[in-house]
Amino acid sequence: MMNIISGGVCAAKGFKANGVHCGIRKNHSKKDLALIVSDVPAAAAAVYTTNLVKGAPLTVTKNNIANGIAQAVICNSGNANTCNADGIEIAQKMCTLVEKATGIAASDVVVASTGVIGQPLDVTPIADHMDALTAGLSYDGSSEAAQAIMTTDTISKEIAVEFTVGGKTCRMGGIAKGSGMIHPNMATMLVFITTDCAISAQMLQKALSTDIRNTFNMLSIDGDTSTNDMVTVLANGLACNAQITADGEDFSVFMKALNTLTINLCRTIAGDGEGATKLLECTVTGADTLEAAKTAAKSVICSSLLKAAMFGADANWGRVLCAIGYSGADVDVTKVDVSFRSAKGEIAVCKDGAGIPFSEEKAKEILLEKEIDILISVGSGSYSACAWGCDLTYDYVKINGDYRT
Amino acid sequence: MMNIISGGVCAAKGFKANGVHCGIRKNHSKKDLALIVSDVPAAAAAVYTTNLVKGAPLTVTKNNIANGIAQAVICNSGNANTCNADGIEIAQKMCTLVEKATGIAASDVVVASTGVIGQPLDVTPIADHMDALTAGLSYDGSSEAAQAIMTTDTISKEIAVEFTVGGKTCRMGGIAKGSGMIHPNMATMLVFITTDCAISAQMLQKALSTDIRNTFNMLSIDGDTSTNDMVTVLANGLACNAQITADGEDFSVFMKALNTLTINLCRTIAGDGEGATKLLECTVTGADTLEAAKTAAKSVICSSLLKAAMFGADANWGRVLCAIGYSGADVDVTKVDVSFRSAKGEIAVCKDGAGIPFSEEKAKEILLEKEIDILISVGSGSYSACAWGCDLTYDYVKINGDYRT
Repeated sequence: MMNIISGGVCAAKGFKANGVHCGIRKNHSKKDLALIVSDVPAAAAAVYTTNLVKGAPLTVTKNNIANGIAQAVICNSGNANTCNADGIEIAQKMCTLVEKATGIAASDVVVASTGVIGQPLDVTPIADHMDALTAGLSYDGSSEAAQAIMTTDTISKEIAVEFTVGGKTCRMGGIAKGSGMIHPNMATMLVFITTDCAISAQMLQKALSTDIRNTFNMLSIDGDTSTNDMVTVLANGLACNAQITADGEDFSVFMKALNTLTINLCRTIAGDGEGATKLLECTVTGADTLEAAKTAAKSVICSSLLKAAMFGADANWGRVLCAIGYSGADVDVTKVDVSFRSAKGEIAVCKDGAGIPFSEEKAKEILLEKEIDILISVGSGSYSACAWGCDLTYDYVKINGDYRT
Repeated sequence: MMNIISGGVCAAKGFKANGVHCGIRKNHSKKDLALIVSDVPAAAAAVYTTNLVKGAPLTVTKNNIANGIAQAVICNSGNANTCNADGIEIAQKMCTLVEKATGIAASDVVVASTGVIGQPLDVTPIADHMDALTAGLSYDGSSEAAQAIMTTDTISKEIAVEFTVGGKTCRMGGIAKGSGMIHPNMATMLVFITTDCAISAQMLQKALSTDIRNTFNMLSIDGDTSTNDMVTVLANGLACNAQITADGEDFSVFMKALNTLTINLCRTIAGDGEGATKLLECTVTGADTLEAAKTAAKSVICSSLLKAAMFGADANWGRVLCAIGYSGADVDVTKVDVSFRSAKGEIAVCKDGAGIPFSEEKAKEILLEKEIDILISVGSGSYSACAWGCDLTYDYVKINGDYRT
């Protein structure tokens, strides 16, 4: 049993959070500094961007959780602290500030930054607001933290689930920032997940590394892999279940909970992509290999032409075929069927790689909805995959044409 | 010596061309059918898209020029004749129509189509206009043909060069259609090149296959590899030079002429990308391998975020670093320098992978120009590469949001 619940990163026992405006951003109504703390040290796991240009905070975080333990997460928005000569030093200072304000060792802090690349990050506004940030920590402060990590996001992203491991009720929750520069590769955007489930750091890392292959790594907003992508999970064990230390039923339940949460965040992030008006979910079935299914699905979701067609509610299925064709996926393009589906119904537009007659009117009605499923069958194989993306709109161009100014 | 001359595909001796409106497109003022013929059979070479979904005309053309000989090119716009059950049959009919109208064997015809994928192509309007098309063939008809192959292009694309091989004056000219769905891979868009230089079909193919690696394959408008990309060259030998049949000085001159022409077309196609307001030329120097230089340059040119920043004349160099970082190119990101250059001057914005102080005002002035060079040094290696692209604009979204309707 898996229930979606409220509470975000504070849904699990023993996690407090807060978010404040400290002044990295000029807009006073926009929070820009978040803190999440666990009452007790937690097992920690993380995955990071594969971009060779890595944000300084990732280096510091990787070092801090090398022992599999963390107790706090600090994250600012408005500045990525990347490509700065003093980046590492500043990221370490942020951890030290957490230690001073909370007593949690700097080496047990996950640090993250998101925003503009290549502008020096002044730590002063952070230092000046650590007292307020810490004083406001609360067991229902998830929303404050979720707001503080937003960049061009239009909605804050929180989700939590409740599940049972070894007879004990466990909870897991997460917050995410998405929007732009999202084309994860082995990791993604910023996502902070907390759980009170007891699990070893090793199994936690296994769960996360396995999960992202079919979740965050199948998400693309714009094809750009960020320098600061990171997903972390803290598991503090306060649910008091027998610690998960190996594969088995408990681990499967944990994986299922994690997957429920990450897929929800993927969909939320994709639907709130920069400038997006629609969430696109592309499902490829009937592939001979998992790799082929994944490659084809992701290629379709990444096609600028298809994304623009979806913005225009245009059933231009030729662009779906085209994107499958250049994806590199080993599929027989003469066996491809394509349908579009939404709350308004489903319509088949291509059979065996060629067009079939369909009502343009009905197709338009279906594609005018906010959530569009692109359903692709590539044959009679047994592998399938899903990818998430969004449409390409005027506003994406607008947002990114003058992001810095 | 290499002179740019006028005349396009009719610059070389013995080539006639024409273009008419036959009715595939609804807009009567838009030509949609082009024909190029050589007075005598010509050596022929071609490269094709690597998309698994291939337009039917490509299959027919490949078969027709397997013997290294062709004498005519027919091309329609407005319909790609791709993903249609009867595509091959229709493409063959187009060749037969050329035979009937000109006496040139159908098996010596290069056939191409560009436009919407997956809509049956009715050959009737083509058949009905073959007489007019043929009657209008002229030794200065290149512009008519260039106009007839345009899709969303805003300008027709023609270029010709004059060069000397073995003491004989030779000419080479080409027309192209570009605009959207351009991210060539082993071939590209539609480009038809003619020359009166005498060269064997084998050496002609070698010249073309070698050239495109550093020209058309380094061009991207939107990351989408078309199903109908093709570049063909016809060489009819009427310049009466001693036929080029092997490597050597003559072949080098020929390669240089071809390269002058293809780079010109790359720049024209990029600058006229769908919705584009700017031509972007990215040059990477100092790489340890050619592959690294090419991979980095192309990644920068393909970044939606950088393209949008260029549209906004925003010197957001962090996006350049980011695109190099995720490109997969083997470069030391702590040794990357970046400058922007245009007719208004040059400005350095990043040194050794980190930002340096620069005048935002001067940067804006430089980036407001129509042709922007992005200059990247990645170290002290001896390899360099160039890639061409364009900015991402509101109009790209507009054009592709309702392309079919």
